[in-house]
Amino acid sequence: MYRRPLFGIRVLDLSRVLAGPYCTMILGDLGAEIIKVEIPGRGDDSREFGPFIGNESVYFLSLNRNKKSITLNLKNPIGKDILLELVTKVDVLVENFRPGTMENLGLGYDVLKTANPRLVYAACSGFGHTGPYSHKRAYDQIVQGMGGIMSITGHPGGPPTRVGASIGDIAAGMYTAIGILAALRYRDVTGEGQKVDVAMLDCQVAILENAIARYFVEGKSPGPIGNRHPSLSPFGSIRTKDGYLNVAVGNDPMWVRFCEALGKRELASDPRFTTNALRTRNWSELEPILEEVFATRTTTEWIAALEEAEIPCGPINNIEQVVNDPQIRAREMVVEVEHPGIGGVKMAGIPVKFSLTPCSIQTPAPGLGEHTKEVLQAMLGISDEEYDRLSVEGAI
Amino acid sequence: MYRRPLFGIRVLDLSRVLAGPYCTMILGDLGAEIIKVEIPGRGDDSREFGPFIGNESVYFLSLNRNKKSITLNLKNPIGKDILLELVTKVDVLVENFRPGTMENLGLGYDVLKTANPRLVYAACSGFGHTGPYSHKRAYDQIVQGMGGIMSITGHPGGPPTRVGASIGDIAAGMYTAIGILAALRYRDVTGEGQKVDVAMLDCQVAILENAIARYFVEGKSPGPIGNRHPSLSPFGSIRTKDGYLNVAVGNDPMWVRFCEALGKRELASDPRFTTNALRTRNWSELEPILEEVFATRTTTEWIAALEEAEIPCGPINNIEQVVNDPQIRAREMVVEVEHPGIGGVKMAGIPVKFSLTPCSIQTPAPGLGEHTKEVLQAMLGISDEEYDRLSVEGAI
Repeated sequence: MYRRPLFGIRVLDLSRVLAGPYCTMILGDLGAEIIKVEIPGRGDDSREFGPFIGNESVYFLSLNRNKKSITLNLKNPIGKDILLELVTKVDVLVENFRPGTMENLGLGYDVLKTANPRLVYAACSGFGHTGPYSHKRAYDQIVQGMGGIMSITGHPGGPPTRVGASIGDIAAGMYTAIGILAALRYRDVTGEGQKVDVAMLDCQVAILENAIARYFVEGKSPGPIGNRHPSLSPFGSIRTKDGYLNVAVGNDPMWVRFCEALGKRELASDPRFTTNALRTRNWSELEPILEEVFATRTTTEWIAALEEAEIPCGPINNIEQVVNDPQIRAREMVVEVEHPGIGGVKMAGIPVKFSLTPCSIQTPAPGLGEHTKEVLQAMLGISDEEYDRLSVEGAI
Repeated sequence: MYRRPLFGIRVLDLSRVLAGPYCTMILGDLGAEIIKVEIPGRGDDSREFGPFIGNESVYFLSLNRNKKSITLNLKNPIGKDILLELVTKVDVLVENFRPGTMENLGLGYDVLKTANPRLVYAACSGFGHTGPYSHKRAYDQIVQGMGGIMSITGHPGGPPTRVGASIGDIAAGMYTAIGILAALRYRDVTGEGQKVDVAMLDCQVAILENAIARYFVEGKSPGPIGNRHPSLSPFGSIRTKDGYLNVAVGNDPMWVRFCEALGKRELASDPRFTTNALRTRNWSELEPILEEVFATRTTTEWIAALEEAEIPCGPINNIEQVVNDPQIRAREMVVEVEHPGIGGVKMAGIPVKFSLTPCSIQTPAPGLGEHTKEVLQAMLGISDEEYDRLSVEGAI
């Protein structure tokens, strides 16, 4: 078996639902060994989230590929001891509990650091481990609202709008992965582990792009900006005969080519629209003209015409179109993973392509506790009898 | 000066505008030395993007903190030689040109790898370095449309909606940083560098969350889902007297507390609404009742009442509220950076908090070519005379 970039890195993953599991999915896809620790008899809450195939949550399956599952009761003293032993044999621990949970279990970073000073301990939470809201409960919806992205998403004059994917969780999962990888580099160089604290709310601020700059320079909050660029025109979505199209006319020579592709050469010389600044200023006059033209042909027809003229453009794909797109297929961004009992399950692929150590999905998401025995025997040298005793004691 | 996690890592950054510079901003914030290579006399296009303070683009300043700038003309043979020499002295090279650009300059990965086999070469492009669309031009708007996120963002029955921040660029920048850090780990262990190829479009697919699973299980594309959870109720945005509020009633006991906090105890026992499944099924009846109640008080008043009842909730902040939020301030997620000539500039802080090696913004964004002489002298041992000659020759 070829090596993936993070071969040899072992991660103990106490996280549930989305932000933490998305982080450890990234690390597992990159080749780290992910040991997912779940509550005996119940497991990760997201095992109960739809949609389902048979009894299996496809939500869970798509986030937990390339991971092993062990069960461990962290409220049981023996379960706790096992966790402390496992901590001495891993590089990274990831959790996304509410701050204070690990301390209440007697498993706070101070305790784990004593057991393994080289440990990278990553905590991903709604509001972070410091500050006045630290102990509040957060969901994606709530941090999207508090972090500002909803206030700039949507159509001008309309209501604030949630991003349709859980970007509150996903951005936090990605930044937690980045923090872990940076802390591992530091650990590799110096021998010292540390705690990495990532808040979903902070990550929402980090992805706001130019909105903060605009607020401080202009002195007022930007509103929802719709589908068009604030200072380039035409640059955004236009309705066609059968849907929508995105076009990006980035400069004035491109505007001339664009008008020609539309069969509207006269527009190119119309004094209201000759420069980008004029087109932006006079957008309310230009928009209805373009809408009338674009309504005459389908999205596919317009894309062919505009690409011929080298105008950057593209469809607004629905998910069916996304999963069938030739580029997305060529890049293996939709992959099928064989699951015992239910067959092939399609899910998003891995977006980082390595020339020397290509990544792939090597194992499907695990059944609850599927690897408990294997992991405890391999890592802690536990005998069959001890394993049975742990089970009787309710530790696993 | 204390050490940050990536101390000792040196990055040659040929990238411009957003996706690449966002990636190298992350690496620079984490402590890598970022040497931004810009076109002589012109620099990164985003130096011309608004908003401005004086002549400085705040857009550029906020993305390019913690970096040095050198100018280098890559079309000039001497400039090219200098780049090849620099490549032997760095760990990472990042570029976000259209695929083929580096090859056309005679600086493709094959050439650079020969110069430095330990190099991690990261290419971030619209569609990636393989596949039928590889050479097409992409902008954030276009990949947001093609990648599916616009089709699931927005209100049911309404038009597809762009995410208000450039998530097409930002997700790609984050995944490029993840790929680089993973490849560095592999390089540190094995001594071998490699090429990392990240496409904006692929990253849009990777952040779609459960939309792909829903499509394959249900056989139809999910549409824009608005601001509410598809299977939990009430879980989403509600209009108040002066704005909006997000609430997340995750289970039935919480529903009872929610009704009490609203002063509507009778709702809790209303047979149409006693379970989550019923509330979701009868949402069209429940929604107007809740809208009437919530219209009687302000967002702030409702948050106080709901927090008292331990109901997860939060405001939908505009950017002014975000930058003044006590938690965001406590977490240093809005920081002020002093810029020579123009004074303090506020921007987003660093969302990964390290216990041992905390990160901070140590230098403001550089002037165009501010560090050319310093970097070439330190890294290549160039004399004052040679430097002047490079300038005369148009190489820098």
